[in-house]
Amino acid sequence: MIGNRTLAVPGPTNMPPRIASAMAVPLEDHRAPDMADFILPLLADLKQIFRTQTGTVLVFPGSGTGGWEAALRNTLDAGDRVLGASFGQFSMLWMDMCRQLGLNATTIECNWGDAPTIDAYRRVLEADKSHSIKAVLVCQNETATGVTTDVAAIRRMMDDLGHPAMLFVDGVSSIAAIEFNMDAWGVDIAVAGSQKGFMMPTGLAIVGVSERVMQNVQERTGRIYGRSGGCGYWDFATMAEANSTGYFPYTPAMTLLHGLRESVDMLQEEGLDNVFARHNRLAEGVRRAVHGWGLRPCATDPATVSDTVTAIVVGDRHDANAVIRSAYRNYGVSFGGGLGAVTGKVFRIGHLGWLNETMVLQALGGAELAMRDVGIAFEPGSGVGAAVTYFTEQQATSLMAAE
Amino acid sequence: MIGNRTLAVPGPTNMPPRIASAMAVPLEDHRAPDMADFILPLLADLKQIFRTQTGTVLVFPGSGTGGWEAALRNTLDAGDRVLGASFGQFSMLWMDMCRQLGLNATTIECNWGDAPTIDAYRRVLEADKSHSIKAVLVCQNETATGVTTDVAAIRRMMDDLGHPAMLFVDGVSSIAAIEFNMDAWGVDIAVAGSQKGFMMPTGLAIVGVSERVMQNVQERTGRIYGRSGGCGYWDFATMAEANSTGYFPYTPAMTLLHGLRESVDMLQEEGLDNVFARHNRLAEGVRRAVHGWGLRPCATDPATVSDTVTAIVVGDRHDANAVIRSAYRNYGVSFGGGLGAVTGKVFRIGHLGWLNETMVLQALGGAELAMRDVGIAFEPGSGVGAAVTYFTEQQATSLMAAE
Amino acid sequence: MIGNRTLAVPGPTNMPPRIASAMAVPLEDHRAPDMADFILPLLADLKQIFRTQTGTVLVFPGSGTGGWEAALRNTLDAGDRVLGASFGQFSMLWMDMCRQLGLNATTIECNWGDAPTIDAYRRVLEADKSHSIKAVLVCQNETATGVTTDVAAIRRMMDDLGHPAMLFVDGVSSIAAIEFNMDAWGVDIAVAGSQKGFMMPTGLAIVGVSERVMQNVQERTGRIYGRSGGCGYWDFATMAEANSTGYFPYTPAMTLLHGLRESVDMLQEEGLDNVFARHNRLAEGVRRAVHGWGLRPCATDPATVSDTVTAIVVGDRHDANAVIRSAYRNYGVSFGGGLGAVTGKVFRIGHLGWLNETMVLQALGGAELAMRDVGIAFEPGSGVGAAVTYFTEQQATSLMAAE
Amino acid sequence: MIGNRTLAVPGPTNMPPRIASAMAVPLEDHRAPDMADFILPLLADLKQIFRTQTGTVLVFPGSGTGGWEAALRNTLDAGDRVLGASFGQFSMLWMDMCRQLGLNATTIECNWGDAPTIDAYRRVLEADKSHSIKAVLVCQNETATGVTTDVAAIRRMMDDLGHPAMLFVDGVSSIAAIEFNMDAWGVDIAVAGSQKGFMMPTGLAIVGVSERVMQNVQERTGRIYGRSGGCGYWDFATMAEANSTGYFPYTPAMTLLHGLRESVDMLQEEGLDNVFARHNRLAEGVRRAVHGWGLRPCATDPATVSDTVTAIVVGDRHDANAVIRSAYRNYGVSFGGGLGAVTGKVFRIGHLGWLNETMVLQALGGAELAMRDVGIAFEPGSGVGAAVTYFTEQQATSLMAAE
Repeated sequence: MIGNRTLAVPGPTNMPPRIASAMAVPLEDHRAPDMADFILPLLADLKQIFRTQTGTVLVFPGSGTGGWEAALRNTLDAGDRVLGASFGQFSMLWMDMCRQLGLNATTIECNWGDAPTIDAYRRVLEADKSHSIKAVLVCQNETATGVTTDVAAIRRMMDDLGHPAMLFVDGVSSIAAIEFNMDAWGVDIAVAGSQKGFMMPTGLAIVGVSERVMQNVQERTGRIYGRSGGCGYWDFATMAEANSTGYFPYTPAMTLLHGLRESVDMLQEEGLDNVFARHNRLAEGVRRAVHGWGLRPCATDPATVSDTVTAIVVGDRHDANAVIRSAYRNYGVSFGGGLGAVTGKVFRIGHLGWLNETMVLQALGGAELAMRDVGIAFEPGSGVGAAVTYFTEQQATSLMAAE
Repeated sequence: MIGNRTLAVPGPTNMPPRIASAMAVPLEDHRAPDMADFILPLLADLKQIFRTQTGTVLVFPGSGTGGWEAALRNTLDAGDRVLGASFGQFSMLWMDMCRQLGLNATTIECNWGDAPTIDAYRRVLEADKSHSIKAVLVCQNETATGVTTDVAAIRRMMDDLGHPAMLFVDGVSSIAAIEFNMDAWGVDIAVAGSQKGFMMPTGLAIVGVSERVMQNVQERTGRIYGRSGGCGYWDFATMAEANSTGYFPYTPAMTLLHGLRESVDMLQEEGLDNVFARHNRLAEGVRRAVHGWGLRPCATDPATVSDTVTAIVVGDRHDANAVIRSAYRNYGVSFGGGLGAVTGKVFRIGHLGWLNETMVLQALGGAELAMRDVGIAFEPGSGVGAAVTYFTEQQATSLMAAE
Repeated sequence: MIGNRTLAVPGPTNMPPRIASAMAVPLEDHRAPDMADFILPLLADLKQIFRTQTGTVLVFPGSGTGGWEAALRNTLDAGDRVLGASFGQFSMLWMDMCRQLGLNATTIECNWGDAPTIDAYRRVLEADKSHSIKAVLVCQNETATGVTTDVAAIRRMMDDLGHPAMLFVDGVSSIAAIEFNMDAWGVDIAVAGSQKGFMMPTGLAIVGVSERVMQNVQERTGRIYGRSGGCGYWDFATMAEANSTGYFPYTPAMTLLHGLRESVDMLQEEGLDNVFARHNRLAEGVRRAVHGWGLRPCATDPATVSDTVTAIVVGDRHDANAVIRSAYRNYGVSFGGGLGAVTGKVFRIGHLGWLNETMVLQALGGAELAMRDVGIAFEPGSGVGAAVTYFTEQQATSLMAAE
Repeated sequence: MIGNRTLAVPGPTNMPPRIASAMAVPLEDHRAPDMADFILPLLADLKQIFRTQTGTVLVFPGSGTGGWEAALRNTLDAGDRVLGASFGQFSMLWMDMCRQLGLNATTIECNWGDAPTIDAYRRVLEADKSHSIKAVLVCQNETATGVTTDVAAIRRMMDDLGHPAMLFVDGVSSIAAIEFNMDAWGVDIAVAGSQKGFMMPTGLAIVGVSERVMQNVQERTGRIYGRSGGCGYWDFATMAEANSTGYFPYTPAMTLLHGLRESVDMLQEEGLDNVFARHNRLAEGVRRAVHGWGLRPCATDPATVSDTVTAIVVGDRHDANAVIRSAYRNYGVSFGGGLGAVTGKVFRIGHLGWLNETMVLQALGGAELAMRDVGIAFEPGSGVGAAVTYFTEQQATSLMAAE
């Protein structure tokens, strides 16, 4: 491919040069006498990204899938009951993992494109008078369909019901991009990955753990399989104990931690609220473009559309995978494919992380090229033009506000 | 600035990751016993980029301006007569340098936006019966206006006249991007820089020298100032002698030479003819976009438009510098400004080097955003759409051709 | 710290510039249409590093500890019996993990500095007439003491006894540095990490799996916890199935995989036998230096000394941690500390990975500086001189051999 | 070569990772609206490195040789008389350049290894009653022999004599490593290069210009060749005028300027006096090692030995180039060769820039290996041991001082 590739998948995202530079360091001794000077502030600052004061953030060499597993193994025993929803590939896979790990999983099945309703969650919890459900699993942002769930509303409903279950959130494609408030929303475990809002390469599972859960795991003694020492690699208690001195129970991925340091610095410099507003603005530009082309998003309810990824339905007469192939082969543009139930029906534009208006326009331009190549009918420039119009209106508003 | 900056100036261009990696090496001893194994093939392969078999290519730590000076100092004495044209900032500056170095410079003055005609050159040379003109200077691609000169035609005209003057070409923003044939066109000295078609950082002046000139400089003995040893830093004979063994007369910029090695490899892998065709295709996309916006290029004659840079006239009611400022400040896009006579009248989109369709669309999208911000009237998406239409037509043609 | 830091710990090792460059790439889509063209040859070539034709090599985002866990979870059920040895921090921790995961672990306890004998393993296996022991765990190179175990001899003994247990090897600090032959030695699972012989940053657990084990895991159906789908993140069957098409069941750490590609290329270019011989030569230089200083290695039996790390006993009147602190603070040199039972008694010089004679001399020089600072008596230069003498004798031998 | 190469030449030096990272940035527009925010502070801070308040520091894409030429062309006319000394390859070449540029050069010839005496300079200047000598050229640190000249003493002598000549200093291998005080020593032009004390790749000529010289060049009008506009590329007045607004008269080498920014930051953080003291300490370690080997430096007078490079005389029975070849081929160590008159008689260890004790020990260890290979008799470890002894004595002194 001649010229830069355009990365428009919902993770990995584009990497800022600052983060690339931060990771381009000589390898080092993770047991160096002064390592704690680096590690302790990093772990403290990560709490600000998760918006938790009482919780703890743990970082494992791994991926988001490992974070899912860590949540389950550290807190649940075989046979324990959990409640979640399946409304896309990733929410579905987390529920599958629950079953594979021997949990008793109740799954709210949704059409892909819909979000699970609060009522759907409420009905199951209300019926659970014995409080057999130990954990409620919520996928804040279903990466496969571009549909979000309202985590705060689920917590409010649980509180209304007085249900004591833990609340676990898959925030892999939302945290550090879409508003997330661990303490305010009463989240017990939140799972993020380095390759999304943190704008880094894959390789770190970043897990927020509430004070309640951390106390529980520290009180375990000698129990095996499921949530005792049996957690092994993902053990919260062992990790937290070593972290408290600024070290790790096994070799940490130091280069990625340097990237994470820079990532957290950048997020704090921009300000999380600004980060969220930017993602919303850029996402809205993409949605205007989709409308401009005469197409529609996979998300059926405008209230649940994702600010980090838009799945675009190409219509029955076209193969979305052909768009993806043309974009990749002819123009070096990577779009996300439809997964599972929506294979061939949608292509996905990721719009999260290190991103601005022109990067969005480049991705939209790439989509126009590829859609033309496969014969999808639309007015060339209509999508980009709609985004340009929206962005400049926003710019004008922001300039007026600044005056 | 959040998100990548968009570099759309006519040099420096975007740098391919491969070249960045090639330069990210530990520093090394330029007098190492095996250095010739690296240097000799590099200098040989550079000849293929200049398309010369009998000439020599020399590489100096410096910039294109240094290459201009090298051409003059190595071949001319104070008072020697030269002929050139001034049709933009850079062609003008080279003629200024001639005068500053004490040469007797005859300059064909053109309106900026026009190219000097072959006839204009012919008239002066025809009148020079005594062959007092020692060198004819041609700027192949005037970076300030996006206007090209037909070097081959000038050589043919000189041959027709039987005029023995040397032919010097400023190929800084053309070589390795627009067709250039040193031997076939009888060019005596050709000047390039690393930061244009070679897709590298600034820092190398790359100079092609014909067999005729090289023989002359090697025959000099002890003459001072102007073209003898007095060339000092830029001395062709000293450089060529050291190069012949694979070394340099003074410390070379080794990291840049590693980048140049990668650059030459990439140009050869793509194939120079493909490089030229790609630049033409991408440039035509930009020109369609300009037309789509209802604007016009600075270049007055479609036959002379540049495939590496387009200067766009914004019209009397608007300040082109405001477009540039908005693009840079609001969207991180760098366009080239109008220089000298066209300051505020044009903004320039560079489209050379490491570039493909979506990178062009990104720059065009940035232009649309900035033009909207400053109130230039056009249909949003009209420029990008015109480019999308052109690129996909070309894609279709290319796919048909491949069948 | 002014000047380069000297990394002389037994992992992470020094990283070759080639590997650093290979990882300095833009992020990319791990589901790209052509990803298999990158992944399939990489996984195939890794088999050559493990020296297996019939086995499979799997790569997980994680660390060596994750590899240990993967071995256990994929093959054993709670209550299953395993046999291993504890002769240093890392062999001890693997046995601890067995117990934490609910396995019935029989541990051969050794003095740190000794290696477990073949006889010790034999006695337990011989007594296990019912073949209740499902897996024998061997730490090929105990990183904490610089002591090796003879894996091939253990396999021969098992074969002699006709014991059907699986043979698992912790090769984290040996594979790609010390001879390892997966097929020839009948190893069922071999665990390596990216940050040792592979000369990379931490972040990949690299696990070799025999044909026998792979068939077993693929035959599992629906069993939970222990070795069924319950393996979750570390599941061999799921990983292998996705790998077979050139993809992964969850997001892979692409940048590290690019580093691994370069690492494997470099190991193959040097040739594994040359890699092993180099490690032996450099290690012997270190041992000569230790002798030159009048000190002794932690390894009590010269037949078991490690070619990747030497633990040096400083004697009762000195604190080895003071050496480590002085080396780090005053000279920027990182040595490994004594862990667990040997804390304060030894400091460790890692000598594996991207290493040559002068890098060893630098580490030895750093040791001399630090030992002087803390008052350990020795003749300055005696250690470096002994290594210089040995290396130049080897050089002379190698030159004679070449004639 | 397996393992890191050891760079022990007197430039290029080792590059700090911070500088490498600082240069690993996307290419950018050198005419960006905010470029002055980067350029002006950089040029101001460079004055602190040259220790000038009234002077100006100019940065050209080029090498130190270009800086030599810039000094001459900007200030002298053909036929002007200059005085200098030839006491090694580089001081000799600068005097050669004077002659090639048509100047009337008086050269103090010295044996290589000796420094020119103040008296030698005085005798010529005293005899120059008519003040025909326009400039006195001093090479502060002769890189070829490791011999320094006392610039301050020459200035004092000139002042004593009341001679009005300008004082030009070749500080290429001294500035930012050995004490240099532009204002206090009354230096008119000082020439440095990026690849020595600045710890960067080659590619920048960094030139300090006194207020007196700057006023003179700004007053020139229209004169040609030698010191008028004829300076062309190296013209001080044009460069300074553009610099005053934060821009350049032609494309600057931006990536190198980012490296220079980091370099200046690092020098300021360490503190110039500490930089000088460190170079002295490390150099003394090398000299102790040479003595330990029973060899002697090329510098004949201990008062003139260089703190940035030591040329080591191997004795008549040995070929210094064989040492260099063995070091490079067998161990990847780059030493400097003997140039011109001392070819084959000396090898040079560069010890400047980004350097500390263990890096020196590595180079000395490499020298021991190579000297053993070619049969030079010495006690292995004697050089390194002498340096270890010296460094630890210094460390003890520094620790005592800190108490």
